[in-house]
Amino acid sequence: MIVVLRLGHRKQRDKRVTTHCALVARAFGASKIILSGEQDEAVLESVAALSRKWGGPFSASYESNWKKAVRAFKKKGKVIHLTMYGEPFDAVAAQARKTKNVMIVIGAEKVPREMYALADYNAAVGSQPHSEVAALAVFLYELLGKAPLEKEFRGWQNKIIPSPRGKKVINKFRGVIGT
Amino acid sequence: MIVVLRLGHRKQRDKRVTTHCALVARAFGASKIILSGEQDEAVLESVAALSRKWGGPFSASYESNWKKAVRAFKKKGKVIHLTMYGEPFDAVAAQARKTKNVMIVIGAEKVPREMYALADYNAAVGSQPHSEVAALAVFLYELLGKAPLEKEFRGWQNKIIPSPRGKKVINKFRGVIGT
Repeated sequence: MIVVLRLGHRKQRDKRVTTHCALVARAFGASKIILSGEQDEAVLESVAALSRKWGGPFSASYESNWKKAVRAFKKKGKVIHLTMYGEPFDAVAAQARKTKNVMIVIGAEKVPREMYALADYNAAVGSQPHSEVAALAVFLYELLGKAPLEKEFRGWQNKIIPSPRGKKVINKFRGVIGT
Repeated sequence: MIVVLRLGHRKQRDKRVTTHCALVARAFGASKIILSGEQDEAVLESVAALSRKWGGPFSASYESNWKKAVRAFKKKGKVIHLTMYGEPFDAVAAQARKTKNVMIVIGAEKVPREMYALADYNAAVGSQPHSEVAALAVFLYELLGKAPLEKEFRGWQNKIIPSPRGKKVINKFRGVIGT
């Protein structure tokens, strides 16, 4: 079971980036994202709407006390904080593969020092500044490989048929709705 | 040589996501990003400032006529459009490895139909909605592996020393400036 924890969400500034984080968590094999920072029903609702359309299971929830969420998770699995200052991510992913439950923590602008101490691992996807969306995707891809990208999401209403040209989508009720 | 082309940038809405795309392009081994859509000096300048601080070479430029940029590139290499509707990305990356010059195209909200026809390949990193930032990172990682993530950027002023706890940064003039 993989849970993603997004720290320090700011409603105005991070709306789109946090939504990207949630969609990446879902597409690359996590089963849940927990948002912390400013409470933001719009992001939670857009993730829920997307899961209704494209299938599940995936859930998004809010937790104001991120330390509580991290400490609770540490009782059942390993906590990996993605930061550009950390150790090489491939070695950390190899360690994480030995554990059943993994929490992946991604920050927004400024991550509190305590996070570095609370984490079982601080892992870096390269030591250059880039993007928590990219770090999350590449870490999950390294950890789980292609399987989550190829799985069928249960209860889908829309499903894409991969195609070399154009867009081919199956709708559960209407059949192929290519555009 | 790998060039990233970002289509349909919107100044207000895409500022942060486009910046993430540029930083991912730089960190994962592209040498250049071309922005299209609305002209936005602030994004170009923030990428240039980051490259001065963390090293180069990497360049960002603006091109209003994206079709011209794609057609010009097709004379010297292959053009790969990343879209959730495309063919599996790993097979496309295997093809792209045979070519010296690759242009990777990523869209914003709505990509013009012509792009699907102009591309040599339409490639999908999973067939679920997620993020162009993630798609770009995972595609580049699949294409080039870890080497770009481990390389030293020439002319850096700041450089990170990977660390299991906290932040360790070397500044060219001041030495280690851990925080």
